[in-house]
Amino acid sequence: MPGVLDSSVRVHPTALCESQDVGEGTCVWAFAHVMEGAIIGRNCNIGDHAFIETGARLGDGVTVKNQVMVWEGVTVEDGVFLGPGVIFTNDRYPRSSRIAAIDVSYSHKENWLVPTTVRHGATIGAGTVVICGTIIGRYACVGAGAVVTHDVPDGRVVVGNPGRIVGWACICGVPLDERLTCPRCHRCFEIADEKLVTIE
Amino acid sequence: MPGVLDSSVRVHPTALCESQDVGEGTCVWAFAHVMEGAIIGRNCNIGDHAFIETGARLGDGVTVKNQVMVWEGVTVEDGVFLGPGVIFTNDRYPRSSRIAAIDVSYSHKENWLVPTTVRHGATIGAGTVVICGTIIGRYACVGAGAVVTHDVPDGRVVVGNPGRIVGWACICGVPLDERLTCPRCHRCFEIADEKLVTIE
Amino acid sequence: MPGVLDSSVRVHPTALCESQDVGEGTCVWAFAHVMEGAIIGRNCNIGDHAFIETGARLGDGVTVKNQVMVWEGVTVEDGVFLGPGVIFTNDRYPRSSRIAAIDVSYSHKENWLVPTTVRHGATIGAGTVVICGTIIGRYACVGAGAVVTHDVPDGRVVVGNPGRIVGWACICGVPLDERLTCPRCHRCFEIADEKLVTIE
Repeated sequence: MPGVLDSSVRVHPTALCESQDVGEGTCVWAFAHVMEGAIIGRNCNIGDHAFIETGARLGDGVTVKNQVMVWEGVTVEDGVFLGPGVIFTNDRYPRSSRIAAIDVSYSHKENWLVPTTVRHGATIGAGTVVICGTIIGRYACVGAGAVVTHDVPDGRVVVGNPGRIVGWACICGVPLDERLTCPRCHRCFEIADEKLVTIE
Repeated sequence: MPGVLDSSVRVHPTALCESQDVGEGTCVWAFAHVMEGAIIGRNCNIGDHAFIETGARLGDGVTVKNQVMVWEGVTVEDGVFLGPGVIFTNDRYPRSSRIAAIDVSYSHKENWLVPTTVRHGATIGAGTVVICGTIIGRYACVGAGAVVTHDVPDGRVVVGNPGRIVGWACICGVPLDERLTCPRCHRCFEIADEKLVTIE
Repeated sequence: MPGVLDSSVRVHPTALCESQDVGEGTCVWAFAHVMEGAIIGRNCNIGDHAFIETGARLGDGVTVKNQVMVWEGVTVEDGVFLGPGVIFTNDRYPRSSRIAAIDVSYSHKENWLVPTTVRHGATIGAGTVVICGTIIGRYACVGAGAVVTHDVPDGRVVVGNPGRIVGWACICGVPLDERLTCPRCHRCFEIADEKLVTIE
């Protein structure tokens, strides 16, 4: 399989990279598994023990820390940070399909497969669980250990279980102060039409 | 070891399946580890990076998603769904047994080993932690990201940290509405003696 | 690499132990990865699928259960118990460093690397997420599924998301009763200067 990959793709000797849709400069580290049919952009970093399923899509420049699981139906846009141990889901009410009493039809994906999207530049913190059917907005930040049960609007900070909005995040990742200024990079923002806008 | 297993058992080349007690039709996927003495039923599916310890017991038709950890003392009945990253425990008050100051006797299992049971057809959602000593009832549903600290009665839905009961689940997995009817499969139920019973 | 390790160090054939700083008697189990430059004491046990990064430091007698992730900047003292799936962090406001719009300088560690310390004999329960910049005190106990957002003083028990103090723990790991006596090992304590002290 590595034969078809761009020569700049690095796959650790213990990793399994079965997809041929991996962009240049991407690295796949130890014991990670990228399944055939997963689509991975350029310049991504996929940590140890991560798992990317057939049908998952990652943009360019995505950081996938160790043990992250990305399933079919999940779309991760460019520049997203997925912290260690982030777990996505793609079935809202799962059952084992392997006994007769449980007669959910898993033969048709429209019966169970629910998509999830993480937009450009967002951060999902360590150990977060993302309930399927949600959209996590551009540059949003989900705090470590949260459970995302609802959409997260662009630029919002969410923490807790269930996740609740507690503030705004700068493009650089730091929470904004009460004047909507970033204490780290000093960018200034204002709210227009309920959206966060940079002040030039 | 595969020599003794039924020929219908599939073990991925990167997986370790040291148990000889694995039922026919069961699959063990990449980088998973099933220890010697683990008892696994028929037609189970054990995902990547999962770990099943010596002394754990799984029934038939159990779906074990990636990274699930099942320890000695845990019994999982037929048709259970264990979501990605579910963590069981088997020691209520663990310490490292490796320094003198910590003098808990780990040499006798009765000093620390606490059993846990997941009953027929139950669902445990992604990223859930199950505190040992609990029983999760038949067709119960534990929502993703929950921490199970108490028994979950049959058919109950539990979410949050700590897990609390928020409703009833249909056999098909969907939460019942206020008339105890399933919005997906249209089964009807009633409560008799605090138990959920199907109305014929 | 195993050539330089003490002959009493055991590394499972599927594990990667690239560090040469691993103390005698330590075991590294299946699919675990100890990176070069990680410092590991004597008589530790590092479970399946665990990951210890360059720059992490573990003392002697540390129990590292399966899937634990210990990053650069994390110091774990002697006799600590890290439960299955414990996740540390080392960047308070992470972003992917891989796209131009995100201009946090990841080239200088002082811009992002935040240390964390787990003191002698502490227990961190299964599935806990530890926010960086915290100190978890001697013999403290973090309950399974907690998210540690603040320092945990010596001997304190913390549970929940966010983690909050709910009691005191005995050296043996069991919560103390209201008379500050351990119901399991019968040690007696008192509080002096807000610290827990054994009564001889």
